[in-house]
Amino acid sequence: MTTPSVYLDRVTRELSKLPGIGNKSASRIAFHLLKMGKPEVENIAASMIDLKNNIRTCVECGGISDMEICSLCSDTGRDRGTICVVEGARDVLNIEASGEFRGLYHVLSGLISPLDGIGPEDLNISTLVKKCGIRELDEVIMALSPTIEGDATTLYLASLISPLGIKVTRIAHGLPVGCDLEYVDNATLAKSIEGRVRI
Amino acid sequence: MTTPSVYLDRVTRELSKLPGIGNKSASRIAFHLLKMGKPEVENIAASMIDLKNNIRTCVECGGISDMEICSLCSDTGRDRGTICVVEGARDVLNIEASGEFRGLYHVLSGLISPLDGIGPEDLNISTLVKKCGIRELDEVIMALSPTIEGDATTLYLASLISPLGIKVTRIAHGLPVGCDLEYVDNATLAKSIEGRVRI
Repeated sequence: MTTPSVYLDRVTRELSKLPGIGNKSASRIAFHLLKMGKPEVENIAASMIDLKNNIRTCVECGGISDMEICSLCSDTGRDRGTICVVEGARDVLNIEASGEFRGLYHVLSGLISPLDGIGPEDLNISTLVKKCGIRELDEVIMALSPTIEGDATTLYLASLISPLGIKVTRIAHGLPVGCDLEYVDNATLAKSIEGRVRI
Repeated sequence: MTTPSVYLDRVTRELSKLPGIGNKSASRIAFHLLKMGKPEVENIAASMIDLKNNIRTCVECGGISDMEICSLCSDTGRDRGTICVVEGARDVLNIEASGEFRGLYHVLSGLISPLDGIGPEDLNISTLVKKCGIRELDEVIMALSPTIEGDATTLYLASLISPLGIKVTRIAHGLPVGCDLEYVDNATLAKSIEGRVRI
């Protein structure tokens, strides 16, 4: 196959390194870039570079931030008595999008996973325990994935935080909204019955 | 929703302008960029800018090119007696990938579509007819989509080129390879019977 443009080939190859973008999608995007105005393409490229140059980790919660302390941690309007513990910075955005939580976050940057050689000391756990010891907290909400690693991490953290006299909760496991009961797996159905609430 | 980073928001917004990338995919890619090394991200961004700065239209075939005449048109190893007419520059790459064609290409940059106000004068047609008058051509292969616009353009070009004594052909319409006859639509089935070949 002869290629009419090495520049097109290169951008297709580079784009196909991104998650969810295969060769066909990369080629489609490359031809779309050709049709776009130059300033628009420059905006996309600049936004990527700016991201790499400017983003940092919040010293308070361990999430992503533009400053030393992120806009969530420095927002005085939020409930400072509640901390929601999540695996990664992306979870913060998802929970924020749900609009259901107005407290602060703590990002672990991973889950305890002995099989992968990840122990508690590899995660952002000591600062969380320190926070729990210093601040007057009402509740720590564990919002980790309902997997073996997630559950193990939840139980480990609860064993550290509960003795400090702080209520530790876990987000509900059950049926996803809008799902058809017929297609729900047994484990999820069992969790939903176990976690039933009074109406 | 409070955002922890305007840089992350911006790159997510910019990426979601690309075809096939929604908000969720854009967010996933943005977080992937955070994990990638800075030189790798700079490579992606630079490949986009380089594409916009360097790509041009081949004066011979109307396809994309890095030089005045593209590598396909200037390749002396190709069969110069056959021209394959396509709608867009992307079709050239797809036909090249099939490995079935070794001639030259001509890119129309569109199809005749009276409903959209696109007539023959809006397309790269006059240079094709001029080529057909000057060069010694054996065959012009029409490789346009089997749609009303594609068929109309094919017939229009055949009416211009056939009188010059050049064989005009059209790529076969029929069953896609690997399909199940049960799920083929009636129009495709009719075309495949009409275009049957002796075995």
